Amino acid sequence: MVNKEKSRGSGWQINMPKGTRQVAENESQHVQRTSSRLRNFVSASWKMGVDEPKKFIHGLKVGLALSIVSLFYYVRPLYDGVGSNAMWAILTVVVVFEYTVGATLYKSVNRVMATAVAGSLGVGIHWVASQSGEKFEPIIVGTSVFIFAAATAFSRFIPTVKARFDYGASVFILTFSLISISGYRVEKLLTMAHQRVSRIAIGTSFCVLTSMLFFPVWAGDQLHKQTIKNLENLAISLNGCMAEYFKNDEEIPVMNEGIKEKMQCYNSVLNSKEKEESMANFARWEPTHGNFTFRYPWKQYLKIGEAARSCAYCIDSINGCINSEMQAPEFLKKRIREECMRLSSHSSEVLKELATMIRTMRKSPKIDLSVKDMSVAVQELHDALNSLPTNFLRLRSLPPIAEDHPDSHQEEAERSAKASIIEILPLAALANMLTETVTRIEVTVDAVNKLASMARFKTNSDKKNKQKQQSNKILQRM
Amino acid sequence: MVNKEKSRGSGWQINMPKGTRQVAENESQHVQRTSSRLRNFVSASWKMGVDEPKKFIHGLKVGLALSIVSLFYYVRPLYDGVGSNAMWAILTVVVVFEYTVGATLYKSVNRVMATAVAGSLGVGIHWVASQSGEKFEPIIVGTSVFIFAAATAFSRFIPTVKARFDYGASVFILTFSLISISGYRVEKLLTMAHQRVSRIAIGTSFCVLTSMLFFPVWAGDQLHKQTIKNLENLAISLNGCMAEYFKNDEEIPVMNEGIKEKMQCYNSVLNSKEKEESMANFARWEPTHGNFTFRYPWKQYLKIGEAARSCAYCIDSINGCINSEMQAPEFLKKRIREECMRLSSHSSEVLKELATMIRTMRKSPKIDLSVKDMSVAVQELHDALNSLPTNFLRLRSLPPIAEDHPDSHQEEAERSAKASIIEILPLAALANMLTETVTRIEVTVDAVNKLASMARFKTNSDKKNKQKQQSNKILQRM
Repeated sequence: MVNKEKSRGSGWQINMPKGTRQVAENESQHVQRTSSRLRNFVSASWKMGVDEPKKFIHGLKVGLALSIVSLFYYVRPLYDGVGSNAMWAILTVVVVFEYTVGATLYKSVNRVMATAVAGSLGVGIHWVASQSGEKFEPIIVGTSVFIFAAATAFSRFIPTVKARFDYGASVFILTFSLISISGYRVEKLLTMAHQRVSRIAIGTSFCVLTSMLFFPVWAGDQLHKQTIKNLENLAISLNGCMAEYFKNDEEIPVMNEGIKEKMQCYNSVLNSKEKEESMANFARWEPTHGNFTFRYPWKQYLKIGEAARSCAYCIDSINGCINSEMQAPEFLKKRIREECMRLSSHSSEVLKELATMIRTMRKSPKIDLSVKDMSVAVQELHDALNSLPTNFLRLRSLPPIAEDHPDSHQEEAERSAKASIIEILPLAALANMLTETVTRIEVTVDAVNKLASMARFKTNSDKKNKQKQQSNKILQRM
Repeated sequence: MVNKEKSRGSGWQINMPKGTRQVAENESQHVQRTSSRLRNFVSASWKMGVDEPKKFIHGLKVGLALSIVSLFYYVRPLYDGVGSNAMWAILTVVVVFEYTVGATLYKSVNRVMATAVAGSLGVGIHWVASQSGEKFEPIIVGTSVFIFAAATAFSRFIPTVKARFDYGASVFILTFSLISISGYRVEKLLTMAHQRVSRIAIGTSFCVLTSMLFFPVWAGDQLHKQTIKNLENLAISLNGCMAEYFKNDEEIPVMNEGIKEKMQCYNSVLNSKEKEESMANFARWEPTHGNFTFRYPWKQYLKIGEAARSCAYCIDSINGCINSEMQAPEFLKKRIREECMRLSSHSSEVLKELATMIRTMRKSPKIDLSVKDMSVAVQELHDALNSLPTNFLRLRSLPPIAEDHPDSHQEEAERSAKASIIEILPLAALANMLTETVTRIEVTVDAVNKLASMARFKTNSDKKNKQKQQSNKILQRM
């Protein structure tokens, strides 16, 4: 058998001049890099489609809507050019069809309203201009276009306008300019405007219906799920942080797999503001769906988001404590391990309970108890810390008796003798950050409770009554 | 003189039934509320226009561009309808004209490219369909519209596509659908497509020129300024926090005015991510302007932003420490006051120096020294903390002699006797958060230094040489 590897390598080397080989290698590297980039791109897109099939379905929906509209105009072709009819219908579908129902509704309502307002205003200006003689006509038209366009373009910077009417503003400028410069007489303009508005209304309702009836993606639903996910992520991160911090403790079972990833879960919460705000803006346009009524208090979700983010900032600082170069010695860590673990598990319990509350849209009977447990755990942590110096002094005078190793006995005695505030410092900081996190979790609890009363979450009393009846029945049978 | 107030009040009360008065009051309240809201809105907009005249100028620019285009078509009116010529020109101006030059360029390039690609693809599909017989024609057209629209709509979710070609994707779908369903023959389509592309190119270049030549707003410039502002805000916040924390200390001059506002300066940094990313995206499209070359390392600004945000999270935690219920007693605070103030002032010094480095685009000769000062200050703070327990024990056995008040002597002795780790805890946490902030500031320093080498910031050696020459001259004169 021939050694392929070797013969190929040496053969190329001998047969080709060095420069050529360099170029060929560079080229093949370039091709390889491009192809690997392309492969990465395709696989990333594929993964996104598989992970979030709704995005994939959105693509299909747009394709379907467009091909239906296209075929409609194809079957009754408009040989007079890419006529305004076909054009406006397709333009509407392309521009208005958005991922969520709320965004589609927002754009549709904006489009119809802006077209109607700009149309009537444009006709008015046009009439005034046409009555004022040939000399003044262009002046009036030009000035009014300038004033309205400038005012509208400026108004798009104002936050309230931007949140609700950004798209409408651009449609307004477009329609107003088109109508006021057109050379038609007012009567014809009126019929045209009427036609245009009705056509756009038909186009947008087609889009709205498609987006609402086939696999709808509700912005409100997304915001709801995002909020739940954020609270859960905070809970996971908090537990992950404590597991990582005390990982050298042999009494805790090693669960290193994925701890680092768990710790980083809070990252998705840090920069959630803009996304949540736009979802809340769109959610306001959505009609009743699922458990969400029209005028559901979406704004309260933003407050919950705000509180969750402030928790995330705290967890980021805890992460800083964990990764810091300055670390407390293990024997000191051990003294508050149990209390820290208990506090973090109670805190995550509260966060998870809040997530469950929002998910099930029921008031939780457990939440008050969980919050109390969390406060008790804070007190216990403080007590544990408070007992440190005493132990400390005792340790100094009476080093603990090591049963197995005389060396370790020696070591521990030396170490505890040296132990100073600089060694307690990291522990104190961690404890303080945990306490601060608890304070911020309490703010989150208040925000969720306010949502519960605003959105009239159900209590579990019905459920309890049922359970009582059931247990009564069982008792009677016995 | 008649007492108007009284007569009016009693008159109304007598003459009108109770219900009516209620309604009138409600109505007047409603009117009042609406008018006050409107007044607020107008004053807020006015303030924005005065604070950021560039936004106001943007409005004027849009108005000017549109009225020029409108008047052009008004003077040579198109009586054959709101013709495609006027339409496309106005559509282009309305849609492409954005606030920053980068955004305008991004949209222009996307529009032209997408129209060209979609046009040629559409003509190709159209030709294939027209060759395949009447039966298959609608099937081919419908299928291709479906496939391309679905794929493009889906691709807009992919981050890289979204960042660079989001607008292009929607133009692509629009143009492709319009051309492939049109009933024209291929020859006519080609001339039309050619016309359309050239018209759009003319329209976009008009927009690009207007946005570049009259009071241009560069996205890169905005990002640059925003980054500087963020670093400065962090410095202000850090100093404000320390001033607030030690405000009860009588040795520090009271400077309460605006301290609370200063403390909150970091808030603008917390949620800066999305804005910075979009600005960096637009900045990449901008040609050389001012000190910024084409291919200037804008992405490095995002890294600086990331580091600045992580500092902001730390400052948020420091804020938490300050507002926490758990506070160290004043006499303990006093012991590390000086070190904390020195550390915070050195840290803000470093942050301000970084801001200056970016602003002047010069390497700073001072920065290394400032960083060193900061590290020394950290060490000093740790030493001060470390000396706490010793003082502490001494305090316990030997309460300090109070010269003025026997009561305060008693109090302090009692207090220091009680002082335990739970009282040091808040101080330790604050010190630790300060240390963590310093660590993160060092990361920021690295990021800015990397920017300095990537963007080839000038050194001050030229300046130094000049100064040396000058001082030599002065020496010679003496």
